[in-house]
Amino acid sequence: MEPGDSNSAAGGKTQNASAPPVEGVAGGGTSYGWVDGGLRGTSLGAGVIDPTKVHSEDLLHVWSMPSTANVSQQEAPRPLEKVNLLAARNERESFQIALRPKVSWATSGIAGYVQIQCTDLCSSSGDRLVVGQSITLRRVVPILGVPDALVPIDPLSPQISLHPGETAAVWVSLNVPCGQPPGLYEGEIFITAVKTELDSRTESLPKSERYGLYRELRSCLDITEPRDYSSPEDMVQRLTSASTTLRRMLDNPALQDCQESNGFGDMMDEDVMNNVSVRLKLSLTVWDFTLPVTPSLPAVFGISETVIEDRFCLEHGTEGWYDALDHHFRWLLQYRISPFFCRWGDSMRILAYTCPWPADHPKANEYYSDPRLAAYAVPYAPILSCTDAAKNSLRREVEILKSKPHWSKAYFYLWDEPLNVEQYDMICNISNELRSYSPDVRILTTYYCGPSGSELAPSTFEAFVKVPNVLRPHTQIFCTSEWVLGTREDLVKDIVAELRPDLGEEWWTYVCMGPSDPQPNWHLGMRGTQHRAVMWRVWKEGGTGFLYWGTNCYEKAMIPSAEICFRRGLPPGDGVLFYPGEVFSSSHEPVASTRLERILSGMQDIEYLKLYSSRYGREEGLALLEKTGMYLGPDRYTLDHGPVDVMRGEVYRTCRS
Amino acid sequence: MEPGDSNSAAGGKTQNASAPPVEGVAGGGTSYGWVDGGLRGTSLGAGVIDPTKVHSEDLLHVWSMPSTANVSQQEAPRPLEKVNLLAARNERESFQIALRPKVSWATSGIAGYVQIQCTDLCSSSGDRLVVGQSITLRRVVPILGVPDALVPIDPLSPQISLHPGETAAVWVSLNVPCGQPPGLYEGEIFITAVKTELDSRTESLPKSERYGLYRELRSCLDITEPRDYSSPEDMVQRLTSASTTLRRMLDNPALQDCQESNGFGDMMDEDVMNNVSVRLKLSLTVWDFTLPVTPSLPAVFGISETVIEDRFCLEHGTEGWYDALDHHFRWLLQYRISPFFCRWGDSMRILAYTCPWPADHPKANEYYSDPRLAAYAVPYAPILSCTDAAKNSLRREVEILKSKPHWSKAYFYLWDEPLNVEQYDMICNISNELRSYSPDVRILTTYYCGPSGSELAPSTFEAFVKVPNVLRPHTQIFCTSEWVLGTREDLVKDIVAELRPDLGEEWWTYVCMGPSDPQPNWHLGMRGTQHRAVMWRVWKEGGTGFLYWGTNCYEKAMIPSAEICFRRGLPPGDGVLFYPGEVFSSSHEPVASTRLERILSGMQDIEYLKLYSSRYGREEGLALLEKTGMYLGPDRYTLDHGPVDVMRGEVYRTCRS
Repeated sequence: MEPGDSNSAAGGKTQNASAPPVEGVAGGGTSYGWVDGGLRGTSLGAGVIDPTKVHSEDLLHVWSMPSTANVSQQEAPRPLEKVNLLAARNERESFQIALRPKVSWATSGIAGYVQIQCTDLCSSSGDRLVVGQSITLRRVVPILGVPDALVPIDPLSPQISLHPGETAAVWVSLNVPCGQPPGLYEGEIFITAVKTELDSRTESLPKSERYGLYRELRSCLDITEPRDYSSPEDMVQRLTSASTTLRRMLDNPALQDCQESNGFGDMMDEDVMNNVSVRLKLSLTVWDFTLPVTPSLPAVFGISETVIEDRFCLEHGTEGWYDALDHHFRWLLQYRISPFFCRWGDSMRILAYTCPWPADHPKANEYYSDPRLAAYAVPYAPILSCTDAAKNSLRREVEILKSKPHWSKAYFYLWDEPLNVEQYDMICNISNELRSYSPDVRILTTYYCGPSGSELAPSTFEAFVKVPNVLRPHTQIFCTSEWVLGTREDLVKDIVAELRPDLGEEWWTYVCMGPSDPQPNWHLGMRGTQHRAVMWRVWKEGGTGFLYWGTNCYEKAMIPSAEICFRRGLPPGDGVLFYPGEVFSSSHEPVASTRLERILSGMQDIEYLKLYSSRYGREEGLALLEKTGMYLGPDRYTLDHGPVDVMRGEVYRTCRS
Repeated sequence: MEPGDSNSAAGGKTQNASAPPVEGVAGGGTSYGWVDGGLRGTSLGAGVIDPTKVHSEDLLHVWSMPSTANVSQQEAPRPLEKVNLLAARNERESFQIALRPKVSWATSGIAGYVQIQCTDLCSSSGDRLVVGQSITLRRVVPILGVPDALVPIDPLSPQISLHPGETAAVWVSLNVPCGQPPGLYEGEIFITAVKTELDSRTESLPKSERYGLYRELRSCLDITEPRDYSSPEDMVQRLTSASTTLRRMLDNPALQDCQESNGFGDMMDEDVMNNVSVRLKLSLTVWDFTLPVTPSLPAVFGISETVIEDRFCLEHGTEGWYDALDHHFRWLLQYRISPFFCRWGDSMRILAYTCPWPADHPKANEYYSDPRLAAYAVPYAPILSCTDAAKNSLRREVEILKSKPHWSKAYFYLWDEPLNVEQYDMICNISNELRSYSPDVRILTTYYCGPSGSELAPSTFEAFVKVPNVLRPHTQIFCTSEWVLGTREDLVKDIVAELRPDLGEEWWTYVCMGPSDPQPNWHLGMRGTQHRAVMWRVWKEGGTGFLYWGTNCYEKAMIPSAEICFRRGLPPGDGVLFYPGEVFSSSHEPVASTRLERILSGMQDIEYLKLYSSRYGREEGLALLEKTGMYLGPDRYTLDHGPVDVMRGEVYRTCRS
């Protein structure tokens, strides 16, 4: 469907007019009068519409869109078709359901409420993907007018509101566990116009009972509240009496129906859904490939500790602070990302660390040996205060870590984009110190140019290419901006030619403010395939790792639910891949952006390409990118979703056992 | 404020950064870390925000905007200033209140609810403009993403919801009655963040929240349940995590008012408003000019009866049909518009009539003699079926009407934009018939070119200018498209030179698909002053009337609340100046567009200009347009509101008695 077709698609209600009228000629469109247009569709009568008595397809348009589509409020309806997806085990595959009201059936400024219920997906051999666990629904919320934030829909009350003349979108993700048996899984999503919000007041808890609950909760907290727990006996006592109180609360008659309905509250019965719901058929082929738990390509992404401290009003080093960092770490791990926390100083000095606990804390081992973590940053503590204590503590960290099997994942990230000889010297000094603790430390340095104040080479690009000569052996991970390459993929060989893999040197890349459109990046307002193509580019160019500076770098605020402002001077979305859940609801769970989901998809695509190349060679892998039309270069990649599915389907076809 | 400033205005939360960073240089914006930005404003703490305990100015931005501003969802906040307005008696003056959340204080996907309460406006001598009667509030709702529909806010529950990262707008109209004593009227608007919708859930716990509580209680019990508590460490762990869960439950917004139940009920008392509300001061100078009840410039606007019949499922001629037409007629009259109902036939033949009842019906006299009606269309019934009965009935209509004082307002509108000699001949034939009934009938003909198939003149424009020679005496109101003039105001004299005022000939104009941007018209997405300037143009060019083809010409639909689709081939908004109320709520009242309000403002501006010219001469009136910078020509008029107020202020200053 062409964008210009928006009217024609809106309900088949346009006239069967002949040619479109021309400016100033015959007052096009005025002639609806004696000449009737061909209106199809039922009349719902002139009164208030009762959605329980009308098929929902008469009330709203429902159609599916791929995960790379930016479904705007003006998106025009398309025909509803069955959704067919392919996923490996340990893979997340997503698509979107677009919804647009044909009429209004609510009475309070919105067009109406819609309930979205998904069945489990079942295979013929009885295996299941369970709603709420493996299948999640999120509402796509615009940020600066661009569909971006994915706000979870409560599985117990899976409703959204539709507004007149606006298309809404729901993001459906299927998460295939590692142990899921391969097979064809089928299910349905029922989309039903409903009268009003689920939480109807008739069956709710009266105020007096709420007071009761409140008092019991408080007294229970008084029992468990951590203080100086005097003795094991005291603690047993506390646990026992807390349990008693909790059981009493659960016995509250007002909560009885919660018990019985095995989680699904007010859900509609099957008859109703069969009679009035729009049904979206969904099939998922799970194949016998399992994405490696450890991503093949380490992708290290920054989380600003400063932003967390400010927004959530947490003092550095308190229990709440550790909890918040831990929460963020775990949450980002699911995106095949290796997080590092960071804090910037002057001259782009940076403190980067993956684990907030010291190396001898049990949590450190838990973090560093997590198989989902592909690389971790070791904090260079003296960067904060260069005392002997700090140096000793660092030495002890390295002593502990270098004996562990996960030491091969460790790196130091000391400076963001050093610009002059002075800054290069600082890196070299630190490197000398670190190498005295362990000769095999890996230092990562990001850069997009050679050092100013030195005459490395006659041209800017040559000075950039020669950086390894200056930083050897003080850097092992040479991490360059994709912005330097521009659309000149051929320059990659010049960069790589300067590296010494025999010394363990690697080439990584990063994106930030640049490159800009039409090259791949993660700015708001770019196309979905443009977001996903960042990782396609990495794979094609052959880098062995990737860095992104920030995932939560919105403007400073000191209230969890404060409006999200992007930082001045940065392209919208740059440095912001998720949002605080508090902005959108009472949940403390971060809210992913569509861009973060597309990063995950890109990371998954890399595993597909790697599998294919491991069977048929890298040249064939590159040929697959090209022949599917998915990615040919930084300014030549698919704008539509089709080639993505073709690539994945081809890997499935040729690599399944 | 420049558009590029959007970040800076969003809450003063941006850093006091020096120069904005440059692409690829120093990773602009990353350096928020050791270096603190200058954050002003209070910390609201990390918990759920209780809006009854916090000043609303900490929760949202409030600022005013003029009625000519299109306040988009991305509109950046400005300082809140007192609103000073000027209005004559029998005038409506409007402005907008823009609202944008700084934080989220609701819990269900929106940022929060806001209550907007306006005091009566009082003068020092005790006169009043009463809220709900003379002061109305409407929510500005986007259509195709453009703020356009003005949906009434229930005065009994004056709340709107704000969404994270979105600016909302409320349209405030002050209607000054004819008899209102001049003076300075003052009042205030209180904008208050509130906990929840007025019909509130504070009194009960919704079912979905009960399920949430139930789940949390169960998981808490799982933690504390006495088993073989393995170790003191394990127990500390259990007590700690039970406490965390309990604290989260206690934070449940549904339980907040249990904490201390001094939560005031549904209505806010003055103390509360004084303590926590944002106060917008409002003053209105009512001056001793009364806009004439009968508009000085007849502006005749079409209402499609076909669209009404279809959408409201009404059969032609039934009681419901008469009611619906009557409702539309009365509703449009308030906009200084003289409505006509219409139905188009083939070849742009048109049936146009102002009153659905025959001339001998009491309603006909009521309609035609309404002083607010500046002109009325008499139906030429034989255009539907050219029977003797139809002709007789027409003759009887004219017989009755021509004896009435209101006959001078009557016109026949027979054909929309005749294009060829054949169509011209039809008009002449009908004219001959009509003039046999009454020699002083006025026939209105719209056109934008000369008849094809005749050699009137060597050039297209000359053929257009010579149309009166062909249509005399069969047309008295020569109504030409502004599109023909383009930006060539000087061509007006060529048109007027061909007319014979001595024979009662008049020059009117119209806009429809053309002219297009940057000339004034009423398409969606044009600037507010561009909408208002249509009437400035009419006044400057000196036409004595104006025609607009359609006010409700959306696409065909057969359900009152069906989505509004603009007709294919027309620019969005063309032919649609109001919307069916049913799309937005259960109300049957039409919903005005901002464009319709700006048409009214333009009609009112004409009265100001006419008053000024009556005192100082038309040349001075034209000079006033020019020296204020309000309107210099079809492509040179103010884009900002300022000059509009300057013009009105100047008329007030120089013409008050």
